[in-house]
Amino acid sequence: MSSSELLLSLSQKALHLLQEDADKIEKLIEVQMENLTTRKCPLYEEVLDTQMYGLSREIDFAIRADLINEAAGKLILVKLERNLAELYEALNKKE
Amino acid sequence: MSSSELLLSLSQKALHLLQEDADKIEKLIEVQMENLTTRKCPLYEEVLDTQMYGLSREIDFAIRADLINEAAGKLILVKLERNLAELYEALNKKE
Repeated sequence: MSSSELLLSLSQKALHLLQEDADKIEKLIEVQMENLTTRKCPLYEEVLDTQMYGLSREIDFAIRADLINEAAGKLILVKLERNLAELYEALNKKE
Repeated sequence: MSSSELLLSLSQKALHLLQEDADKIEKLIEVQMENLTTRKCPLYEEVLDTQMYGLSREIDFAIRADLINEAAGKLILVKLERNLAELYEALNKKE
């Protein structure tokens, strides 16, 4: 494998791992959205915040380690933050 | 640069970044240790916990992304955890 192929492969793996972690948070958001009509779990917000913080640290590290570029990292976070904002809006409306 | 040189360079950079982040936590622990005789800041424990969680997520990611091996990652965390335990022991003795 040439060094440019290796770099591409490592970058793709890094992006894939980050997207997997983002998908887990996405799933948490979806589950809470579905449960809007039933009851609100008070720990959900804290769990989501912690997971978002963990992911942002991973993304920041991947950028500093030259595995992904800043735009790709921001894209993952911005999308999740938009969904989180929708969830909190829906939760507030319900209250 | 050959692909093995590139991998070595990326691994070294990753380890260096993780060690830098670990050093920041180490510094926080030292400052709190020095301030044992003055007053205990109630937010210190929370800040340290959050920083330790962030670092553990970075290390876990670096292992999964094939940048560092598991032993190297664990070594960084174990050393910090030992120092944290000493700090908490000292704080408890003071109370």
